[in-house]
Amino acid sequence: MKKVAVVLSGCGVYDGSEIHESVLTLLALSRAGAQVQCFAPDQPQLHVINHLTGEVEAGASRNVLVESARIARGAIRPLTELAVAEFDALVLPGGFGAAKNLSDFALEGDRCTVLDTLEQVGRDFIAAGKPSGYMCIAPAMLPRIAGEGVMGTIGTDVETAAAFERMGGQHAARSVSEIAVDNERKIVSTPAYMLADSVAEAAEGIDKLVDQLLAWCE
Amino acid sequence: MKKVAVVLSGCGVYDGSEIHESVLTLLALSRAGAQVQCFAPDQPQLHVINHLTGEVEAGASRNVLVESARIARGAIRPLTELAVAEFDALVLPGGFGAAKNLSDFALEGDRCTVLDTLEQVGRDFIAAGKPSGYMCIAPAMLPRIAGEGVMGTIGTDVETAAAFERMGGQHAARSVSEIAVDNERKIVSTPAYMLADSVAEAAEGIDKLVDQLLAWCE
Repeated sequence: MKKVAVVLSGCGVYDGSEIHESVLTLLALSRAGAQVQCFAPDQPQLHVINHLTGEVEAGASRNVLVESARIARGAIRPLTELAVAEFDALVLPGGFGAAKNLSDFALEGDRCTVLDTLEQVGRDFIAAGKPSGYMCIAPAMLPRIAGEGVMGTIGTDVETAAAFERMGGQHAARSVSEIAVDNERKIVSTPAYMLADSVAEAAEGIDKLVDQLLAWCE
Repeated sequence: MKKVAVVLSGCGVYDGSEIHESVLTLLALSRAGAQVQCFAPDQPQLHVINHLTGEVEAGASRNVLVESARIARGAIRPLTELAVAEFDALVLPGGFGAAKNLSDFALEGDRCTVLDTLEQVGRDFIAAGKPSGYMCIAPAMLPRIAGEGVMGTIGTDVETAAAFERMGGQHAARSVSEIAVDNERKIVSTPAYMLADSVAEAAEGIDKLVDQLLAWCE
């Protein structure tokens, strides 16, 4: 049974993990018989966004690990406890949490930094020859994690793609039903809600991402 | 294209809608080509539960509609705006929100009451001959909504089933991959996370629930 670490970044598209992407990832992994452990950083979220209005909730504070636990139904551990040796693969769903809590890409663009713990974990998976999957905006962190020349997709947004390339990434324009595959680093990415108009559309690419991820584990 | 109203009760299994069930419902409806509108009551949650520890967050307050908007990616309306005439079917995912925010079943058991607005909506769907789907613990509200003799499943928990029967319901013991069908009232239910050990298991029953729901709409 393959063991997969899923890194979450909160609970909600505007300030955390995109919920549909996260559940679709867990569903695809569950259907494939993989054993999943969720992780998230034990730190405050950058923002709490009212998802009805889209506005920042002034003065509100929520913890990334505690909110991610909603998606994981409580079965989640702090990111600092993610031991690469214990897992066969890594997956990061998207949502603004990837660009606000796991990195500061939402604020800094191509000058962003990635959370130290995550940067190290991501690099360790690559160094160990173990596959990783990044979806939606999460691939924006790939040039920092995987270095110059890494291939990934963030959809078709020209500015985001340009930032990705200025950081040293090689952007692959893909549709919502497609994946981009970096065979050298065993990294697969898909645009998901960077492009999806529906949850069924998002599932198309995510199912393929998980298929590719687990195929590398064989 | 069939139009389906999905009623949410927050965002997280312990104080709101069960997230996996909600997304699986949206996925099945999306794949079937149905048009979905989410609704939730604009009111405070009974509790805010820290999903990492399972404890009540003392002094914390969250709004059911605002938190449900996380699952709906912002595309949600107050439950008071749900006009039965505009929809072909109704679905309620589970989670403690159904027993804490949409009703007080979690506190009162067989002496529970259901939120007036929801009770009326549920009755109106039945009266209009339009189908409804209830999953997980949400069917506990059915005797209040649909009256004496309604058939539903809440899984296999003996005490919950007994409370359901004392309220006038006819409990149908079903496995996680099965549905209970009340043909007279066009009500379908499935245990989902009352029994599911994995998201893939929950999806089995939920996919069948949505299939039955949309078959009634033909």
